Formats: sequence, C-alpha cells, structure tokens
Amino acid sequence: MGALHAGHVALLRAARAECEFVTASIFVNPAQFGPGEDLATYPGNREYDLGVMEDEGVDLVFAPGTDEIYPDGFDTTVSVGQLSQRLEGESRPGHFQGVATVVCKLLTIFRPDRAYFGEKDAQQLLVVRRMNTDLALGAEIVAVPTVRDPDGLALSSRNAGLTGDERSAALGLHAGLALAVKLRTEGETNAEVLREAIRTKMSKRGVRVDYVSISDPQTLDELDDLGNVSGPALALVAGFVGETRLIDNMAL
Amino acid sequence: MGALHAGHVALLRAARAECEFVTASIFVNPAQFGPGEDLATYPGNREYDLGVMEDEGVDLVFAPGTDEIYPDGFDTTVSVGQLSQRLEGESRPGHFQGVATVVCKLLTIFRPDRAYFGEKDAQQLLVVRRMNTDLALGAEIVAVPTVRDPDGLALSSRNAGLTGDERSAALGLHAGLALAVKLRTEGETNAEVLREAIRTKMSKRGVRVDYVSISDPQTLDELDDLGNVSGPALALVAGFVGETRLIDNMAL
Repeated sequence: MGALHAGHVALLRAARAECEFVTASIFVNPAQFGPGEDLATYPGNREYDLGVMEDEGVDLVFAPGTDEIYPDGFDTTVSVGQLSQRLEGESRPGHFQGVATVVCKLLTIFRPDRAYFGEKDAQQLLVVRRMNTDLALGAEIVAVPTVRDPDGLALSSRNAGLTGDERSAALGLHAGLALAVKLRTEGETNAEVLREAIRTKMSKRGVRVDYVSISDPQTLDELDDLGNVSGPALALVAGFVGETRLIDNMAL
Repeated sequence: MGALHAGHVALLRAARAECEFVTASIFVNPAQFGPGEDLATYPGNREYDLGVMEDEGVDLVFAPGTDEIYPDGFDTTVSVGQLSQRLEGESRPGHFQGVATVVCKLLTIFRPDRAYFGEKDAQQLLVVRRMNTDLALGAEIVAVPTVRDPDGLALSSRNAGLTGDERSAALGLHAGLALAVKLRTEGETNAEVLREAIRTKMSKRGVRVDYVSISDPQTLDELDDLGNVSGPALALVAGFVGETRLIDNMAL
C-alpha cells in the first residue's frame, strides 16, 4: 500500500536475496477499508516509495490505478471463512474479503514463485496462506519478521499520524505483549491471566484496547491453558491511540 | 462433471481444433449441489468418459478426488455478486459460489489460454466470464453452442434419468423457447407476453415451471420491452419433469 518504511524494506531485501526477479505492487486498496476508516488520510508519497524500490533493486513496480484492479462492472469477491471472521475481521467487517480479493488478483497477475508478507499482519498472513493453498495459486508464502523501532514500536505506515504523546502511548501495545512474553517465560499458562495483564498494561499506557487475543497460531482459536499446547501461542492486540488504530503481535 | 454426451464432445472438438494442447477435467463438484439436489444420483461412467476423451484427442485428463480439490481445512470461496443471485442462483442457493470457486481453482491450476464452456449453461458462462475478467485469470472464455437432439431437446447428463414419458414432457422447454423465438420474429416485443407464452407452453407439455426469464444477455436484468433493446434478448427457462430439473435457453 505504499508509504514505505523499514518493514517494507525488509520484505524487499528478503525477496532480493532469494529471487532472480523481484516485483512489488503499490496499491492502496479501497476494498479493504471500511466506511469509517482512514482510506482518505492513508499516508503515501509515490516519489519516495519509487526511490526506495529502486534503491532496493526491485525489477518491476506495479502501481495500478483503482480502475485497473476494479474495472467497470467488477463484482467478484474471494473470501476465507473462519479465519476472516475473528479479531481484525470482527473489528473491520469486510476487511479480509478486500484483502483476499486483491491479493488473489495480484498473485494471478504476477504468478510469483514466492510472495513476501510481514508478520506484523499475522492474521492477514494466515488468510493469504489459506487462500493460496485452497485456490492452488502456487506461490510460496514467505513470512518476514516484524521490524520495530529501538524502543519496540512495530513499524506501521499509520505511525506517521501519531503526535509525540500518542507515539509514547502507542508503545503500550509492545509493552503489553512484552509483559505477556515475560509472564509466559516465568511459567504462566493461564491465557486469561495473560490477556488481562496485556489489557491492563495497554490501558495504563493510554491505549484504548480493541482486542487482546491469546490464540492458536494457525486457527486463531482462543486458548485457555497454554500448558496444553505443544507449540508457541500467538498474542495479538489491537487498540486506538487518538484516531489511529494500531495492531501488533508476538509469539509466546 | 463427466457423464459425457455430444455437448461435451462439441467442447472437446472446438478445443482440439483451436489449441495445441487440450486438457479436460472430470470432477463432480459437491460444492455446486444443494442439500436436496441430485449429487448422489448424478450419472457418470468413468471408463466411458475416458474412452470418449481419448477418441477426441484430449492430451491430458484431470480427474481429481474431492480431497485434492478440497484439502483438509479448505475454507475459501469465490463469489460473483449480482449475476449469481438470480435465476439458477435463486433456485439453487450457493450453486454459483460452488461453480466459481472450483472453476477459479481449475483455471489457476491449468492456466489455459482458452477455456470452453457450453451455452446451455448460459448463466454459468456469464459468471465464469465475470470472474475470469475480475480476477485476471487470463483465459479466453470460449462459448460453444448448445447441442440438441433432432427433436430439439438440449443435451444434458440429466436426460439419462428421464423415462419415455418424461422425455416427451421435457421437450416442453424447447417448445416454449421455440414459440418465443417465433413470436419475437413475428414482431412481439412485450417481454411479459413472451414469458407467459413460454410458461403456458411448458406447462401444457407437462413441465413444472421453475422460472421463465426474458433478460439482457450480459446482465440478466429482466426486460420489459424488447423494442427498446439493441441486440438480442436471452430467454432462459428451468423446470422439473418428474424428479429431474432441466434448463435451456435461446437468443431472441
């Protein structure tokens, strides 16, 4: 979606290191924004983005107009069921249908051997993996770790809209997740205790909590007792700081 | 879906005449059958079908198991909006979602230059065209005219289930459509007059009418006055003969 930051650069570098030909899309997709959301104010500077892509050795940039992706009479949607209905899907109805449809179209246009997605959007990554498998789109979906500022704030194009005080509050998402990791490491296995610890930490730092989830990293089913789970659980959070909605996640 | 008849053979021959490499799928797709429908009794003889395909010079037959198309955890659907909601979509809820999803998957697996569909399933053809355009699937969708028995009955795998009397009644679909063509040729432009003439003819021949439509051949919007329409209109019918549901259509 443009508005490139070091998280996007990490995607480009991973692709550049592993692939012969690297292509990137820039498309602020209206279909994945809801009615009250920030489509109109979503940041972006095309010249800057193209400069970054050139510097990172991208071979081809695809920056279609909305009419190219959604031609006259466009009326097809791709949906992933259960994974799309919880967390981000519950807070942002239609969001993942918009994501799945445009990613399906980009994958069918480009037919990449590998496609790179950031772990920051953990649920999106799961939705894309499910769709890619189910429709036999043939890409290997590569997850790239979340890039953070030195103080822990996950990079997001939306961070550009934060005032100084808001940025300080936004650290509450990371602080909540980091606390859960610490508690889990110390032996806490009760998921509700962990959720409550995250909620409290986020609220204290000034984040209006949207959701806090401790869930199975494949299905996003909420967990009760992490002692019963073989692999790591996933902690996912969303919240508002001022008008800005932010998300983050960490493996426990 | 197997159960090959001369209509399928016409598809294979059109493809064989125009393409270097011809592939055909045989897959009775559970997702496009509704709860009360005839999935369990849908006809088919794999040996016979493979023999026909060999005779017609098909280079590759893809006959996947249900598990191959719908692997464990499958949860993705492709939907075309307005076109899917009327006529067959209204009578068979979920039908076109099942069709669109499997055709999308087959097109992404095969990535054909051309894909051949019969005009008998006129609405399916429109749904597939819309999806192919919208998701940039890259196939040229080729329509092949409906093949009929000498007395006019449109070929359908479901005709195999008709008794002698039922087959005679089933001719009511063709008789209704042929009457509409005749009336239109003689100057009738009132769509409701044409619909009523078709309904009456079908009923008299013993068809339980499901729907009769006189509509725009691109949008399937119902028409009022064919005098106001530039190109031909499309007449589409569906009805039951005994337990068997049949469809047919003709350009007016």
